[in-house]
Amino acid sequence: MGEEKPLIYLDNAATSWPKPPAVWEAMEKVMRESAANPGRGGHAMAVKASRTLFEARKRLAKLLRISNPNDIAFTNNTTHALNLAIQGLLKPGDHVVATTLEHNSVRRPLEALKRKLGIEVTYVATDSRGLLDLSHVAAAVSGRTKLIAATHSSNLLGCITPIEGLAEIAKQSGAKLLIDAAQSAGVLPIDVGSMGIDLLAFPGHKGLLGPQGTGGLYIHPEIDLEPLMHGGTGSKSEAPEQPTVRPDRYEAGTPNTVGIAGLAEGVGFVLKETVQKIHEREKQLTFMLMEGLLAIPGISILGPELGKERTAIVSFLLEGVDPSEMAFLLDQQFGIAVRAGFHCTPLGHETAGSYETGAVRASPGYFTTESEIVSMIEAVKQIKTTLNR
Amino acid sequence: MGEEKPLIYLDNAATSWPKPPAVWEAMEKVMRESAANPGRGGHAMAVKASRTLFEARKRLAKLLRISNPNDIAFTNNTTHALNLAIQGLLKPGDHVVATTLEHNSVRRPLEALKRKLGIEVTYVATDSRGLLDLSHVAAAVSGRTKLIAATHSSNLLGCITPIEGLAEIAKQSGAKLLIDAAQSAGVLPIDVGSMGIDLLAFPGHKGLLGPQGTGGLYIHPEIDLEPLMHGGTGSKSEAPEQPTVRPDRYEAGTPNTVGIAGLAEGVGFVLKETVQKIHEREKQLTFMLMEGLLAIPGISILGPELGKERTAIVSFLLEGVDPSEMAFLLDQQFGIAVRAGFHCTPLGHETAGSYETGAVRASPGYFTTESEIVSMIEAVKQIKTTLNR
Repeated sequence: MGEEKPLIYLDNAATSWPKPPAVWEAMEKVMRESAANPGRGGHAMAVKASRTLFEARKRLAKLLRISNPNDIAFTNNTTHALNLAIQGLLKPGDHVVATTLEHNSVRRPLEALKRKLGIEVTYVATDSRGLLDLSHVAAAVSGRTKLIAATHSSNLLGCITPIEGLAEIAKQSGAKLLIDAAQSAGVLPIDVGSMGIDLLAFPGHKGLLGPQGTGGLYIHPEIDLEPLMHGGTGSKSEAPEQPTVRPDRYEAGTPNTVGIAGLAEGVGFVLKETVQKIHEREKQLTFMLMEGLLAIPGISILGPELGKERTAIVSFLLEGVDPSEMAFLLDQQFGIAVRAGFHCTPLGHETAGSYETGAVRASPGYFTTESEIVSMIEAVKQIKTTLNR
Repeated sequence: MGEEKPLIYLDNAATSWPKPPAVWEAMEKVMRESAANPGRGGHAMAVKASRTLFEARKRLAKLLRISNPNDIAFTNNTTHALNLAIQGLLKPGDHVVATTLEHNSVRRPLEALKRKLGIEVTYVATDSRGLLDLSHVAAAVSGRTKLIAATHSSNLLGCITPIEGLAEIAKQSGAKLLIDAAQSAGVLPIDVGSMGIDLLAFPGHKGLLGPQGTGGLYIHPEIDLEPLMHGGTGSKSEAPEQPTVRPDRYEAGTPNTVGIAGLAEGVGFVLKETVQKIHEREKQLTFMLMEGLLAIPGISILGPELGKERTAIVSFLLEGVDPSEMAFLLDQQFGIAVRAGFHCTPLGHETAGSYETGAVRASPGYFTTESEIVSMIEAVKQIKTTLNR
């Protein structure tokens, strides 16, 4: 029985938890008082639903420095946003440059278009710690390169991609720059204008502290993507084709009003705390976790060395212990939630040299405490002692 | 500042409201206690999230008489489900038969594929009340017909499509049958097996009483659709292509766990009350509303005549009064939420002869009361008197 929740949640890279209470309070309010369909009727509840969506868009625009909130399309998750960007932009014969750190949500749409449209993809390898050599990217780009796609921060290694350098290469070659902000939105500073980002895919349920079922894509005003879905928009109902007006063009069907109401509060929380403060806090917790783990003989940590810039992602291996065994023991014996496996990034594991084993990923969040980090380190020590390896 | 909610909500065809309290109670529980990422980790919270999804799938399977719950893919809304079905099935040169009652969520994806892949579409006209002559469908079908797509119930006229007849034609010609259950799931009996439905797209937030941001597609086990989105699934992470196992194949990215938890409760409510009881109740309210409105001189109601089978959708016109003026006055002066306009079905309006004006749509729900129906009828009478038309 015992519907126990884990005492210590270190799986924020999958979904952040807990959420600020304002998030579910806003959601409950929508469910109780005004769950009508935005943009599809002029009555009071529908108008209120439309306002909820616009408020969320405005806050996201403020956080990500996007001039026009309507250049943000809401999506179900980051994967949806990445598919909209990739499938909406690429045409037969196009060439794409990506990195070996990409999540399957970038790699699989690209591989699908290789088969379907005959596009060509070059995956530029980083070093084993995730460092990207920009000269390798520049060398991979040609006049046919339509898109450079890169994760802002690897969901396995935590390393941070030099976006401005990629933007410079994209600009010179006429390619568009797509950034996968799954691990960075809300925890690293993002300014789409000054960073030269043309397309930014982000989740609502990770660093932005909103609920699952939310996410979005920023689309530069000069880029027209083919919509991924066609349908009702509540605008230009009489036309057989999808309207061109934003955000309607990319938001066919009834939106997730309740989820987006929660997201607005999550983003509001981030704006109030500031990304800088959140990033500093996560850096501190990450340093502490890495330092403690590295003091245990036989532990190796993937990604940037201790003290170098990274997001709050600590993937590690203990010599002789299978990562899934480690994760299982942490969960069952210590109530610590981490994640073992391939984290949907087989290329990343090849890069890091952990393709045969996978890794254990511990990802603290803004609400993680120092004492939870201490408990995690102690738990790993005890597991090592018990297993006597 | 008067955040008034409408006193009388008659826009259930857009989104049902209110929801059973269990729906948002379940959602709040997920948000507070266990918003972890299902299928992407073995820790207790992730396992619980996976169970939530499976419970919802099981209940939907029970309601819609689907043998294997994994043949249901969760989607963001019906539009997403319809796009997955249409874009995933059709290939260049295919022919599709649809009806003139289709919503833009069927028409627009078909029109997009006409442009993109050169498919051919025949829209079979119903009569002005929405009656479909099956012999016209049979005449439109040829050996090249890959798909017959039809709404179960028009979102404008409320008429009910003879699905078994379409299934017979589909079976004889080797075409697949796609049913848009946007207005029928939860309020009309559906049995995919005995009705011969190959693909069933349904919303979570209408008759199933769940939250916005939910919906799904039933996919017959022998049909393989090309996924609409590619990405991480928590399964077969090492493969560059989308896995074939269901439902993973069609559910890339983090699902809307919180929304689906709410949907499970909505479906649970429908199962408990029974579709039969809900349908009877809605029929009674609809008859009462139609009878009352038809007693007002100058009122005409679209769709099937009084007493004939229909869903709880009553679209009407008052001679000399613009539908948007009517809807505005109902909202502002009487706190009644209805919807005016084209309801994303321009073909439907052409069929009904209301293409120039649109219509006012009043759609009661299971929780609508008799006295609310009386108030609605009285309000229309008063508006007529005031405007003196």
